[in-house]
Amino acid sequence: MKTAPAIITLTTDFGLTDPYVGQLKGALLKGCRTAVFVDITHAIPPWDIAAASLTLSTSYGFFPAGSVHLAVVDPEVGSRRSILAAAGDGHFFVGPDNGILSFLVEEGKVEGIHRLENSTFFPVSVSPTFHGRDLMAPLATYLAQGGILQDIGPAVAPRDMITVTESPVSRQGHRLHGQVRHIDHFGNIRTSIRCGSGQVELRTINGIEIGGFRITHLARTYSDVEVGALLVLVDSSGYLEIAANRANAAVALGSSVGDAVTVHLAPNAIDQ
Amino acid sequence: MKTAPAIITLTTDFGLTDPYVGQLKGALLKGCRTAVFVDITHAIPPWDIAAASLTLSTSYGFFPAGSVHLAVVDPEVGSRRSILAAAGDGHFFVGPDNGILSFLVEEGKVEGIHRLENSTFFPVSVSPTFHGRDLMAPLATYLAQGGILQDIGPAVAPRDMITVTESPVSRQGHRLHGQVRHIDHFGNIRTSIRCGSGQVELRTINGIEIGGFRITHLARTYSDVEVGALLVLVDSSGYLEIAANRANAAVALGSSVGDAVTVHLAPNAIDQ
Amino acid sequence: MKTAPAIITLTTDFGLTDPYVGQLKGALLKGCRTAVFVDITHAIPPWDIAAASLTLSTSYGFFPAGSVHLAVVDPEVGSRRSILAAAGDGHFFVGPDNGILSFLVEEGKVEGIHRLENSTFFPVSVSPTFHGRDLMAPLATYLAQGGILQDIGPAVAPRDMITVTESPVSRQGHRLHGQVRHIDHFGNIRTSIRCGSGQVELRTINGIEIGGFRITHLARTYSDVEVGALLVLVDSSGYLEIAANRANAAVALGSSVGDAVTVHLAPNAIDQ
Repeated sequence: MKTAPAIITLTTDFGLTDPYVGQLKGALLKGCRTAVFVDITHAIPPWDIAAASLTLSTSYGFFPAGSVHLAVVDPEVGSRRSILAAAGDGHFFVGPDNGILSFLVEEGKVEGIHRLENSTFFPVSVSPTFHGRDLMAPLATYLAQGGILQDIGPAVAPRDMITVTESPVSRQGHRLHGQVRHIDHFGNIRTSIRCGSGQVELRTINGIEIGGFRITHLARTYSDVEVGALLVLVDSSGYLEIAANRANAAVALGSSVGDAVTVHLAPNAIDQ
Repeated sequence: MKTAPAIITLTTDFGLTDPYVGQLKGALLKGCRTAVFVDITHAIPPWDIAAASLTLSTSYGFFPAGSVHLAVVDPEVGSRRSILAAAGDGHFFVGPDNGILSFLVEEGKVEGIHRLENSTFFPVSVSPTFHGRDLMAPLATYLAQGGILQDIGPAVAPRDMITVTESPVSRQGHRLHGQVRHIDHFGNIRTSIRCGSGQVELRTINGIEIGGFRITHLARTYSDVEVGALLVLVDSSGYLEIAANRANAAVALGSSVGDAVTVHLAPNAIDQ
Repeated sequence: MKTAPAIITLTTDFGLTDPYVGQLKGALLKGCRTAVFVDITHAIPPWDIAAASLTLSTSYGFFPAGSVHLAVVDPEVGSRRSILAAAGDGHFFVGPDNGILSFLVEEGKVEGIHRLENSTFFPVSVSPTFHGRDLMAPLATYLAQGGILQDIGPAVAPRDMITVTESPVSRQGHRLHGQVRHIDHFGNIRTSIRCGSGQVELRTINGIEIGGFRITHLARTYSDVEVGALLVLVDSSGYLEIAANRANAAVALGSSVGDAVTVHLAPNAIDQ
């Protein structure tokens, strides 16, 4: 019986100017000649574990079950921090134990986590600065080819994992306080406030305040407003986004990652 | 019989810093586990439909027949603009009805165009801001696996498609007036003037004027002139290009997309 | 018998903003529908043959034997410079005869080099500015599918190849003089000085001087020093690297490619 080729996705802060991503894929091909690789992104800001964790948790679900998601943002590479692999929601995840898997765990997406300790996974020659290539790639291809998660090392309880914590979204009367979490290639401003999952519903919003500006136009999509106009919508991953139609909202508003965002709720929204 | 894997190319304005391209490929893999993806480019300037249309029409022919070319520059995503699929020259094309397929149509490359209306192609959950992932990807994999174009919805006459029009190349006596259409990674300046296809032949050119400079050295390739010197040649897609040998012509000439370009023709070229 | 799919890697200075890499892959797919492509990098600085040669020689070994490595940095494209293919260390290499294969040759990695002369490899239509797509891609797919290197044209002696020479590392008493060769995406400064291969051993180093700064902290990996602190280590390809823990060393030190680097050796290192 012919089985579908294994899928391995990559989320790193390596950038695309150096040969690091290529070398990582070479190592993956040594482990599995028939794997299909998909770059989720290699533009995670250097050493930004939380950004990688969020990207992973909002992206993996668009891939077929059985995919292996390798995430390498690893400022402590070569130290005693360990390497984890996890299973959940039909997917596998591999990354350093530095919080990169923690959004997945917080959202209850992960069923089992194991720590890499089995010595057969440690090759003779390991660069202390590139564990993605020398340790995590072989682990990812092992899992991609039906390897047993339990065989890599002992189970780890979620409370024993390193976690990265996000600034929480807080509520004060009719206001929700969040942050700018990401500015995308188009200048769309993704906030830390999730829509339609308990935090807030779009219809209960009176307006959003950001950097002295207030945006009151709530819409489904960019072209619902005039070209150049600002709007608030729910982005394609379920977060509240401030955008502009065919224009760069982040430039227009002078926004940066980390800036405060305040959602003003309609008076009757409090009791919902 | 083993058939060759389906080829799906991608041309978007998504950039590579966000997970959008990865999510799009995840959705494509859900539809077709064995497809081969090739990124034509994800660096189309945001919302620049004409640039995407041109890239598509000058690039698809380098791929094997049977390839599916998905082009997503979609400022009106989520509005009533529809989604088209087309067949022609042995290839398939998928994109929004906003002019992105119009260069192909103008060049007579397309034989049949259909509008997506068949409700089986509309999943329950569609993000109003990411139809590339949620609607066009499944359509592309359907066609990549031998799906019938006619089954997606009604045929569309070329005149009923949205088109993007280019500033035409105009002739005045011994002069051809065109524009800078693209500046590439090397600083090569591609003009809107096509060579060897009726518009102009290289041997009939006396010189090119751009931003107060006049370049008179016509050549086959960069190294035909001294290092640093400017030249005019026919680029690898058949357009007139102003370049420099191992130097950045756009920086040297201070050129930007949209700048006027004037081709001076040899006196006897008029009657050719 | 099912054989593993052919692997073709790509190292170019094409960048990712234009459709050149996509067109190259289209041409490769025309030659071999089942090949797996891996981008090593397309961000070699424009026309920097030495950088490409170094990237190739430090990266190919991470791929499975039998891979074909296509390297296209080709400022003399379309001129009389010829095209070479080489075999060595179980791999194949294809590139212009401009020095791009010379680091491989200097390191003794190449066993046979042949010059493309067989007319069956010259298609009717060849763009004088894109031999990567029109000449080297078909050659790469020929080799990827078991083609015979000897059949492409005559053997070439290494001394008859164009070579790029590196500024050598020189020794003066207790000092080794080298250069900054590359600054990576994280701001890590790779020097031209190789570790553990005769040039120098990390334990014999007293410190490194660069741009008026002296770094004396030698370590295995970034997190061996405090956040923000500078260190010297052996990078994942075996070269001496100046870096900082979670910070950009090149920005901190104001370093650029080509800057002088001086390694101070321990007094007793001379006789080792």
